[in-house]
Amino acid sequence: VTRTGEILRKTAVAMDPRESFEGIVEPVVQSLRGLLQEEGGGPPVLATIGIGTPGFIDKKDGCLIGGCENIPSLQRRSVAHHIARAFGVPAFAENDATSAAAGELAFGAGRRYANFVLITLGTAIGGGLVMDGKVYRGWRGFAGEIGHLCISSDGLWCNCGSRGCFEQYASGKAIARIYAEKLGKRGLCPAGELTPKLVAERAREGDACARDTMEDAGRWIAQAFGSILNILDLEACIVGGGVSEAGETLLEPIRRHLPDHCWPQICSGVAVVAAELRNDAGILGAAAQAFERLGA
Amino acid sequence: VTRTGEILRKTAVAMDPRESFEGIVEPVVQSLRGLLQEEGGGPPVLATIGIGTPGFIDKKDGCLIGGCENIPSLQRRSVAHHIARAFGVPAFAENDATSAAAGELAFGAGRRYANFVLITLGTAIGGGLVMDGKVYRGWRGFAGEIGHLCISSDGLWCNCGSRGCFEQYASGKAIARIYAEKLGKRGLCPAGELTPKLVAERAREGDACARDTMEDAGRWIAQAFGSILNILDLEACIVGGGVSEAGETLLEPIRRHLPDHCWPQICSGVAVVAAELRNDAGILGAAAQAFERLGA
Repeated sequence: VTRTGEILRKTAVAMDPRESFEGIVEPVVQSLRGLLQEEGGGPPVLATIGIGTPGFIDKKDGCLIGGCENIPSLQRRSVAHHIARAFGVPAFAENDATSAAAGELAFGAGRRYANFVLITLGTAIGGGLVMDGKVYRGWRGFAGEIGHLCISSDGLWCNCGSRGCFEQYASGKAIARIYAEKLGKRGLCPAGELTPKLVAERAREGDACARDTMEDAGRWIAQAFGSILNILDLEACIVGGGVSEAGETLLEPIRRHLPDHCWPQICSGVAVVAAELRNDAGILGAAAQAFERLGA
Repeated sequence: VTRTGEILRKTAVAMDPRESFEGIVEPVVQSLRGLLQEEGGGPPVLATIGIGTPGFIDKKDGCLIGGCENIPSLQRRSVAHHIARAFGVPAFAENDATSAAAGELAFGAGRRYANFVLITLGTAIGGGLVMDGKVYRGWRGFAGEIGHLCISSDGLWCNCGSRGCFEQYASGKAIARIYAEKLGKRGLCPAGELTPKLVAERAREGDACARDTMEDAGRWIAQAFGSILNILDLEACIVGGGVSEAGETLLEPIRRHLPDHCWPQICSGVAVVAAELRNDAGILGAAAQAFERLGA
């Protein structure tokens, strides 16, 4: 990625979550060496390396200390430290949803706002906050767990150990589940696997159950945004992740329900918009944050 | 108030909320003139005036634009502007709960933390946020409406027009109501007026209904703190306002329930403590903020 946000090359590496730390990180190092060679000719001009990963990254030492228990070998290790050593340049790690917010701020829908919340509706719900033009990380670097805002005190149990978490109501996984339930109640048999993407597509095409599902999700998202706005007084709410491909089918109910969950003075003038960078948000944000920290 | 946080003189002025703007602000001006004269002798050395008021203060122009509809004449007017002109020194207005957070940061329980949330449990619930050592105001200055975090999606209706607001479950008013309900259910007739202070006192003395009420409030407060910590990753949760005089009777259940509502990594090491400045928090905070803005 260049300083102006152009992605020169990208690649994906399959990962077995049961692998050792080296078994996970070394293939990443090798693939990056490959990309640098392709970029080629003269000596590679690599200023810094930005890294987005799931979980809680301690901003003090870059160690991952939980929140992605499905990859046990990453626990209490610093991917940034290992990769920095391999390439002899500074490397910086960040939670992937925080990276996505940094990406939208630098090069996407966030360019127009100095204060916004981004939610990424994927399998889970991630989030990132930008306040006074800067990515907000929190005391230790763990901020932005918006999927774990409690939106229903006696609600569904969540992986995090709490109940009623936002993630259980509006993540991609939740949307697929709620759509399947709605189909089932109406005696309609779902054919094949129901992905959130499929629900979004069907909603856009006018499928009644899919639209209802998006309406429900929109109401929960509006409630979460309303609470966050009441606390933080932001200019914009940005919706990203795979589910956001539903576009207006999802954004319209969010905007419609928002005033039910927020002080009129606070939600007045607040934009509810789709993220712009899709899957590249994390890449661009990790790069932007690394460039920024390098300069700091 | 001196720069080091000593309150030299204070006074209170009764106010009729139906008065005109001048009818409300002039008695304040007169009482301040009186205090300055008492301080006396030589020319009064007044550097700046800090003001805390209920409602939403636009940080751009200091105008109050809602959130205290019970005092209609303040709407869209700037108390700061009027008072600054009367004394020929800069004056700065701030939401009163934000002022209280500034006070605890400068001179109270917040001195030990650079990142905290303060809730003030009075008739209503106010709140203030400190992040990276600074009072957080939000895009327009309306941040900190923590009483209007939705904690129960189908919950009680609130004055703000939303439902399930935190304020309906743990404010002083809510605590008095819940205590009266508990007494009623158990066939116990409440004698006299039930103030939140009385409930707090009785809880400390061991009254079973009062302790239950504090237990319920503690659970709701823990839920609100848990959601806020998941979003903002703070070091401390500070409990102020009249209800906080219940002390450990309230703080203990909050601490006990907090892990049920927050990621273990995020609530680990977080302090839950009582505010220290009581009713002076707003005075000291308004002064601290005015001194800071004067210097900025």
